[in-house]
Amino acid sequence: MDARIVGWGHTRFGVHDSTSLETLIQKAAAEAIETAGIAPADIDAIWLGHYNNGMVPDAFAASLVLGLDDDLRFTPATRVENACASGSAAIYAARNAIRAGDARCVLVVGVEKMTELDTRGVTEALAGASYSTEEAGVSFPQIFGRIAAGYFEKYGDQSETLARIAVKNHQNALRNPLAHMQREVSFEFCNEISNKNPMIAAPLRLTDCSLITDGAAALVMVSEDMAADFDCAVGFRAAVQMNDYLPMSRRDMTELTAARHTFAAAYEAAGVTVDDLDVAEVHDCFTIAELMIYEAMGLAETGKGAGLVATGTTMRGGRLPVNLSGGLKAKGHPVGATGVSMHVLASQQVVGRAGGVQQEGAELACVFNMGGSGVANYCSILEAVK
Amino acid sequence: MDARIVGWGHTRFGVHDSTSLETLIQKAAAEAIETAGIAPADIDAIWLGHYNNGMVPDAFAASLVLGLDDDLRFTPATRVENACASGSAAIYAARNAIRAGDARCVLVVGVEKMTELDTRGVTEALAGASYSTEEAGVSFPQIFGRIAAGYFEKYGDQSETLARIAVKNHQNALRNPLAHMQREVSFEFCNEISNKNPMIAAPLRLTDCSLITDGAAALVMVSEDMAADFDCAVGFRAAVQMNDYLPMSRRDMTELTAARHTFAAAYEAAGVTVDDLDVAEVHDCFTIAELMIYEAMGLAETGKGAGLVATGTTMRGGRLPVNLSGGLKAKGHPVGATGVSMHVLASQQVVGRAGGVQQEGAELACVFNMGGSGVANYCSILEAVK
Repeated sequence: MDARIVGWGHTRFGVHDSTSLETLIQKAAAEAIETAGIAPADIDAIWLGHYNNGMVPDAFAASLVLGLDDDLRFTPATRVENACASGSAAIYAARNAIRAGDARCVLVVGVEKMTELDTRGVTEALAGASYSTEEAGVSFPQIFGRIAAGYFEKYGDQSETLARIAVKNHQNALRNPLAHMQREVSFEFCNEISNKNPMIAAPLRLTDCSLITDGAAALVMVSEDMAADFDCAVGFRAAVQMNDYLPMSRRDMTELTAARHTFAAAYEAAGVTVDDLDVAEVHDCFTIAELMIYEAMGLAETGKGAGLVATGTTMRGGRLPVNLSGGLKAKGHPVGATGVSMHVLASQQVVGRAGGVQQEGAELACVFNMGGSGVANYCSILEAVK
Repeated sequence: MDARIVGWGHTRFGVHDSTSLETLIQKAAAEAIETAGIAPADIDAIWLGHYNNGMVPDAFAASLVLGLDDDLRFTPATRVENACASGSAAIYAARNAIRAGDARCVLVVGVEKMTELDTRGVTEALAGASYSTEEAGVSFPQIFGRIAAGYFEKYGDQSETLARIAVKNHQNALRNPLAHMQREVSFEFCNEISNKNPMIAAPLRLTDCSLITDGAAALVMVSEDMAADFDCAVGFRAAVQMNDYLPMSRRDMTELTAARHTFAAAYEAAGVTVDDLDVAEVHDCFTIAELMIYEAMGLAETGKGAGLVATGTTMRGGRLPVNLSGGLKAKGHPVGATGVSMHVLASQQVVGRAGGVQQEGAELACVFNMGGSGVANYCSILEAVK
């Protein structure tokens, strides 16, 4: 018995100075419960996606969800972590709880509160998602800077393409009231080094990096035999996870190898090709990642992703709009929340409830959520089943 | 299709100065693969129980398992956390992956490397498993000290009973070559405050506290239809998880309420009573916890657990030997490994392979693993099915 997504919640992504981790969790959870039209007592199990690693003192946060309602007391609650893919990890574990017959109705929350620390502190916390033995002291912008440099060396300078990806995602975010950054940026601004757009880790500039953001997103899933009781229901045509070696030294970093395998397996499970997708939310933690994901998903051959940007294929109105939500780049990237947010956005798309972000007639939505430097890979293909 | 435990690995618990987290993980995993008699290529999914919270720099450790063998590349690997019950959380998620039809063969590893930090650093990392809003700055010894003080106030001073529990678990550990502490301690030593046995958090003395320990444990589980191919197989008569509110202020801390409910649900699922159990590994993070767990599991009425100690009920040779492994008290408590270690020990008992720790004729083994101050609760009842 597979799971159906029947409700969702999503806080605004941004800087939530006066809102605690607990409040973010409970806000998103309450909204998901409300949109699903269920009662807290209906929930059999809770899964939390949270990376943390010192960004907040709460290292054991799953049970914070129970504080929302007295009827949640004694409900099993479990935290799942796969770095920046922790949200998808929680969804997949929750889906398994339903498929295993362990639960009929589950609540999934993804959350991150990043702005309690300064940028240096956040950067250090995120750096915990790399292979400490060989990569200690290297920040994630530096890791993706190295990846970009290697890609540029092999396939030529892609700085303009990266700038255009940033522009696209900022433009898309203007339609998403929950996005962290709602400010149009010009190609010229993104493509030039300036005081306001410094080089962060060559060749990546500030505008090539996603944001340090607070936020939470939540989903309610039920067993498929219950879907008839709900206004709308979203099913998994595919949900594939693959992990790669943690050390970068063991991988060819000029492509996202495990991502490529993950997409291929997801297409096969769903019985589709990339041409069948109507919309995709993918993991643009850095603009170079979005470019390389185009290739991993089979939209372009390896090294040729730039052509898609030049022709507008992945823009609103293009053949496959990517990151209509604004992506991690402009929607923001509260790491534990990101995977859940992607699944919320994709679900809203396929049931026609994505508001200003809606892609007309979207039937198949693809989610690709990644942890670390291409290490944890999750690809979901979602469709409305009601 | 339920899961069967068919292989296990367990490093020695102790201080592993020159052994990294990665090596601990891979040692336990390799041994589990070997005892199961499978090949790494047979493994469909990997689950890691790891609490961490700054004890090591590796905040994204699930994929470290893949480093063991080239055939593990691209295998999904996910970390699960429920504080000191992270090991059981990983087992339950892995079991669901099999029951969900997502995997036929899974590897579970629980690990903690605690001794890279000094005692103060470890104490701070562990304190992250409490409700920061109200309990910040309170260490876990202090939390269980308060719990013990409240229990003593209601039911009378139990210091002698706690000392006897420590003596019992140290005695048991003498038979367990993998235990951290293999030293007999006398009742007089445990029951008296001294330079070597100072008060840590009144009324708890040093000998009432479990150990800061490094270690890893691992399990291989397969789908029940594959069990015929293995030398022995252990099944779950019950596997119940319940969580309670994180804030202690919302709970009556003179009993382990959620633990009581968890045991009751596990007995019901298994169709047994406490009298049917042959052996139990329970969460003695502090001696007061073991005493209160006796009551939660229905061995004694609330407030009357001391009687069991006086009569030797839970000693080797008693009606229900508890923590024949030495328990967290003497075997050691590498927090993410503990739940997996308990399931390994319980599995070995029911298939008659527990070596010097063996309880003759053990058929039903109970595991109770707890996260935080009675917040995350996992009760498994295991039996040999082959």
